[in-house]
Amino acid sequence: MLAQGFRVLQREGHSRARVGELSTAHGVVQTPAFMPVGSQATVKGLSSDDLTGLGFEMVLCNAYHLYLRPGHQLIAELGGLHRFMGWSRSILTDSGGYQVFSLAPLCKVSDDGVTFQSHLDGSLHHLTPERVIEIQESLGADVAMTLDECLRYPAAEDAAEAALLRTTQWARRSRDARRRPDQLLFGIVQGAHYPGLRARAAAALVEIGFDGYALGGLSVGEDKEVMYVALDAAVAELPESAPRYLMGVGTPEDLIEGVAHGMDLFDCVMPTRHGRTGWLFTSFGRVLIKNAQYARDESPVDPTCSCPVCRSYSRAYLRHLFLAKEMLGVRLNTLHNLHFFATLMTGLRDAVRQGRLAEFRDQFYANREACQT
Amino acid sequence: MLAQGFRVLQREGHSRARVGELSTAHGVVQTPAFMPVGSQATVKGLSSDDLTGLGFEMVLCNAYHLYLRPGHQLIAELGGLHRFMGWSRSILTDSGGYQVFSLAPLCKVSDDGVTFQSHLDGSLHHLTPERVIEIQESLGADVAMTLDECLRYPAAEDAAEAALLRTTQWARRSRDARRRPDQLLFGIVQGAHYPGLRARAAAALVEIGFDGYALGGLSVGEDKEVMYVALDAAVAELPESAPRYLMGVGTPEDLIEGVAHGMDLFDCVMPTRHGRTGWLFTSFGRVLIKNAQYARDESPVDPTCSCPVCRSYSRAYLRHLFLAKEMLGVRLNTLHNLHFFATLMTGLRDAVRQGRLAEFRDQFYANREACQT
Repeated sequence: MLAQGFRVLQREGHSRARVGELSTAHGVVQTPAFMPVGSQATVKGLSSDDLTGLGFEMVLCNAYHLYLRPGHQLIAELGGLHRFMGWSRSILTDSGGYQVFSLAPLCKVSDDGVTFQSHLDGSLHHLTPERVIEIQESLGADVAMTLDECLRYPAAEDAAEAALLRTTQWARRSRDARRRPDQLLFGIVQGAHYPGLRARAAAALVEIGFDGYALGGLSVGEDKEVMYVALDAAVAELPESAPRYLMGVGTPEDLIEGVAHGMDLFDCVMPTRHGRTGWLFTSFGRVLIKNAQYARDESPVDPTCSCPVCRSYSRAYLRHLFLAKEMLGVRLNTLHNLHFFATLMTGLRDAVRQGRLAEFRDQFYANREACQT
Repeated sequence: MLAQGFRVLQREGHSRARVGELSTAHGVVQTPAFMPVGSQATVKGLSSDDLTGLGFEMVLCNAYHLYLRPGHQLIAELGGLHRFMGWSRSILTDSGGYQVFSLAPLCKVSDDGVTFQSHLDGSLHHLTPERVIEIQESLGADVAMTLDECLRYPAAEDAAEAALLRTTQWARRSRDARRRPDQLLFGIVQGAHYPGLRARAAAALVEIGFDGYALGGLSVGEDKEVMYVALDAAVAELPESAPRYLMGVGTPEDLIEGVAHGMDLFDCVMPTRHGRTGWLFTSFGRVLIKNAQYARDESPVDPTCSCPVCRSYSRAYLRHLFLAKEMLGVRLNTLHNLHFFATLMTGLRDAVRQGRLAEFRDQFYANREACQT
């Protein structure tokens, strides 16, 4: 087994950006990294071979979804999540906090934990921080997340403070509950968009001590500027030596800014979900493939893209598949979008290594401006 | 360009079975062959690379669907169907007769042709035999089919006779309308389940002269025995030197029997459609993947199968994907089923070459009996 943990390999002088390596029980993840979302033990439409082919080294799965269906015990009996989904690289599991608070039709929080109704069959469940660790250990995630209390945006400061105090208590109980030495555990910094609360939350988590620190509850509707002030306040309290994970973020622009602000890990449903609605990411901005302008367009989605979709298929064909509601369209769109995100992260890592993140960012926006569609 | 046409390479002494090669403008198709159905210029869920990987040398697309959406002219402008769908091997297009009579909400036949409403938007269309050839030539199919009149089962003998007379007239007009020398044209033998009508229809088509002969309107509800009597009556009138295509057939059992009865080409939605409903083909019979018995089953769908799905995934995982309505489940099921059909055809060709088709058939049924699920 590899020595697990995080190592910063290089820092950029002009920003907070850094490149590093997150070593898990299943290999090395080069950071900054984007994790495709495979909530139900599959990144929608793609196989594990597809993801390996795209170059991803870690995927995110969801403890909430897998706990409800097919059940973490069943996955444990079958040898764990990696074997179940045929993925031999790293897996991070989200604790389920966000899903409990956003998907469950009923949800009641107490200091002990959270009681909620399944969105699948209405059955009643109670999850505690300890139980959530047990679930993620059963799944065999390489990185587990602590249970956190998530608030809807905008949250009042006193509500945000109460939630972060509870989240901090839960984080301590989570750390005390962990049993698997081969699993990394990340704490989640809450505190809404209040810089003071974010700083307090981060400091409290660092005192408890985790293998990494995540920022939850950002990019939920607040202005970008507000988000980065809150984020910076948290980062100031976090050790340089630990990985930082900006949860549920984001757009290509968010990834660039996030890296510049010192973030190491990201996840977002955007490339996969947008793929399903025919929204394609390109170097020159979005392509909405259903648009009539592409009906007779022989060119690939992005002429500068080297993905298998752009090498073989035209915009006209992808538009036809989309309008005919053909499953292949969703698959090809998803492959293209995830390739775009993977390539963006490779570009960002190179730029940070070469100390030219600002130029990379300028070039990124210049490409958009030049060919606005 | 290759010399186009059909060549019988070897006959089996104990049956009517033969192996051959159908050479088209896009390559050689080893027969007997099964064609996956890609009605709308895509075999649902799979890319052209997937189909090549599975070993298929020809796919079936549908002139009716492509005429309505995205339009054959658009596909012609974009360089033809091969280029449009990124498939460099052979394509057979069905004429659309079957779809007009089964999908269109309104449909009126005259000697001139057929007037029908689009199932997509209710728009009114008129297709003649000549127009259907023009559409398939625009698409650039390697093998085109003549327009035929299809009856619902059971058809009365006088109705079947009238339909076959019209189909024969349409076949002559189709042959006279063809312009592309790089496209093979097959006539379609109708005549319902009446051996006398089938023989007359076949003889009439041979007199007109086609590159191949298809049997349409079989396996539509009649007993298998009845079907093979009608089929044999037609085959007796067909030249040994021309390829014979049993349209819309069928089950693995149908393919074995069809080969024994001298058929060279088959197509059917079964492997793809059943894949979408979780019905998996195996050497020991069907596996309905949703069944509770597979919830904790670590074994592959078929332990004797060498497909990419059986090499990487368990029944338990496929069941999970099916119950979670995950698109990857449909894709993996489809890949497995089409691999089963491709492998069956390879086995059948080998068996015919080695003169042991009867043993192959016996073994096929013995495997089923031995492990009935």
